[in-house]
Amino acid sequence: MTWLDLPPDTGFGLDNLPLGVFSRDGGAPRTGVRIGDLVLDLWESSSEPEHGTGSLNAFLARGPEAWRHLRERLRSEFTDEAYRGALEPFLVPVDQVTMHLPVEVGDYVDFYGSKAHAENVGRRFRPDGEPLTPNWRHLPIGYHGRAGTVRVSGTPVVRPSGQRGPGDFGPSQRLDIEAEVGFVVGAASEPGTPVPVGRFEDHVFGVCLVNDWSARDLQAWEYVPLGPFLGKSFLTSVSPWVVPLAALEAARVAPPPREVPLLPYLDDADQPWGLDVTLEVRHNGELISRPPFAGHYWTAAQQLAHLTVNGANVRTGDLFASGTVSGPEPGQEGSLLELSGTFLDDGDVVTISATAPGLGGGRISLGEVTGRVEPAPVP
Amino acid sequence: MTWLDLPPDTGFGLDNLPLGVFSRDGGAPRTGVRIGDLVLDLWESSSEPEHGTGSLNAFLARGPEAWRHLRERLRSEFTDEAYRGALEPFLVPVDQVTMHLPVEVGDYVDFYGSKAHAENVGRRFRPDGEPLTPNWRHLPIGYHGRAGTVRVSGTPVVRPSGQRGPGDFGPSQRLDIEAEVGFVVGAASEPGTPVPVGRFEDHVFGVCLVNDWSARDLQAWEYVPLGPFLGKSFLTSVSPWVVPLAALEAARVAPPPREVPLLPYLDDADQPWGLDVTLEVRHNGELISRPPFAGHYWTAAQQLAHLTVNGANVRTGDLFASGTVSGPEPGQEGSLLELSGTFLDDGDVVTISATAPGLGGGRISLGEVTGRVEPAPVP
Repeated sequence: MTWLDLPPDTGFGLDNLPLGVFSRDGGAPRTGVRIGDLVLDLWESSSEPEHGTGSLNAFLARGPEAWRHLRERLRSEFTDEAYRGALEPFLVPVDQVTMHLPVEVGDYVDFYGSKAHAENVGRRFRPDGEPLTPNWRHLPIGYHGRAGTVRVSGTPVVRPSGQRGPGDFGPSQRLDIEAEVGFVVGAASEPGTPVPVGRFEDHVFGVCLVNDWSARDLQAWEYVPLGPFLGKSFLTSVSPWVVPLAALEAARVAPPPREVPLLPYLDDADQPWGLDVTLEVRHNGELISRPPFAGHYWTAAQQLAHLTVNGANVRTGDLFASGTVSGPEPGQEGSLLELSGTFLDDGDVVTISATAPGLGGGRISLGEVTGRVEPAPVP
Repeated sequence: MTWLDLPPDTGFGLDNLPLGVFSRDGGAPRTGVRIGDLVLDLWESSSEPEHGTGSLNAFLARGPEAWRHLRERLRSEFTDEAYRGALEPFLVPVDQVTMHLPVEVGDYVDFYGSKAHAENVGRRFRPDGEPLTPNWRHLPIGYHGRAGTVRVSGTPVVRPSGQRGPGDFGPSQRLDIEAEVGFVVGAASEPGTPVPVGRFEDHVFGVCLVNDWSARDLQAWEYVPLGPFLGKSFLTSVSPWVVPLAALEAARVAPPPREVPLLPYLDDADQPWGLDVTLEVRHNGELISRPPFAGHYWTAAQQLAHLTVNGANVRTGDLFASGTVSGPEPGQEGSLLELSGTFLDDGDVVTISATAPGLGGGRISLGEVTGRVEPAPVP
């Protein structure tokens, strides 16, 4: 199979091969591929300059053909004993590296694609109205977030301060998480040319995990009428390993039945991009939720089709997130607002991890995104 | 005064000196400074590599000291006859150049800072409620827009298609403008370190004009609860010449009286950054409105303080816009929604220009942002 000595049940076998950006001993960040508990230094081992730029963007911009080619080459080299000597010098234990933000993020869009989450939140933010707004079943609601504060897993979560109500300023007292799946655009699209549901794989390279940290008190006061702003913009954390869509073929499932007829540009009957990814949320080490992404109402392919249907283009490095993943059952909530109604204390650590069925019959890992809450700075 | 033969009443005299990015005869884009009807090629004339990168970012990142130094050097060289021989070869008539997007935009934020506009729009979008939401007087409401579709003046405005209501898809029938003033961040701020009102000039380099094209039918259907998305994301146009804040010293005025007490981080009593910029909106050549920016309720310094108070940082190239500039009088509206209730037809041309008091006693020009509506592509 492979000449590598992989741990049993590693989620990072030959069927995964996620890409990330790492550094070692204070050296320059470069692209690596994770295999078992090792990282292959793609820059040193391949001498391809695109792997030495400190982000995946240059490689991703080359498009699906290049992605496929690298993947095939790695699978072949990790399988063929003849490559052991050439590659072993460039394999580094993952616990000896520092991970960096994998992409230079162009635009960051956050969707709102879980029906259970939208209903749960709607009931809390708008107790007198229908939980779902009239548009929710007709289009994948989304909004632009702050690209400049997307950071890699492990970045401290400094409690944000802001307006909690009229004349009331101070540290957020309702700091929350949002467990999401992120989609990384590799190949840009042309302005004026929408990306149909069926062309999803031509543009999206892969998947990461996202924690869209949210200050609910700031958000509640500010969000009408133009949407969330400071309640979200202080930090969005992403997992460091971007799992290629190609590794998720076995995880594809049909999304839930549609409750209203969809317009043709959102019709995905022939292109279901539901993904059977199971998230796990741990709060100070304790497993508190297992949000099931398979039941997400709007798929990423529909979200991309919607995002571009007005002619907007996507660029290499653009990130869009699924929206908080919440299932309908207790223990499947993707935010504390829904799960417990309590919020994060200083010192709390939240870690979101996920796995999905792999092509080899086992499960592949999407790694994890973690963060520890630090107290608000004294002004 | 200057050895240049400037047109009388040029808005681009020695007291303006805006920067932009231009190319000529299909050559590489480089930085230029506009003087009268000429452009000085800063790359060729200075040999500083930052002026040959095709965006202002590298220069702007150097910070206020460098901005001031360049400005003083240019004023001195344009005044001293001894420099004529050295500079004349690098002066190009502005009608022989192609202008490009002046900055690589990091994050684009659009505010909602005109009280008259917010009231006018509130009455139309929420006829049963108070026109101003309860938060409006307490904080500068804003949201993130799409940075990847910010383009330079002259870019065709292709009519966007999208959902106009449940099951109703097609070209927008309510295509509108929003006349705004844009602020270009030069020097980045540190994550976790808010930018107080009094440090505005340390970070913001200058000002441009913005037309935030808006599809009102798409916007009305999508914007509850997370704000505008496809109704705005197809295109935002900016003027090509970025006027330094230093050129607007004579335009500084006190903003309107505050109607509620402001929290300390928004208190600008000692740092008024109202700007007496008068916009002019032309529709197919006809002057239809003169929005007065002097009366804008929230200043750009307050907007930046708000944007960063939760610890979010700004990066070189970030753009934030004032929100539609509308005054309280008829003929001062910054959008067609408010002005006439009618919308743009294919072939329509909208041009927004502006002037402000200059340091020399005359008026300086902020140039213009223009666009022509093209029909929606046939699917």
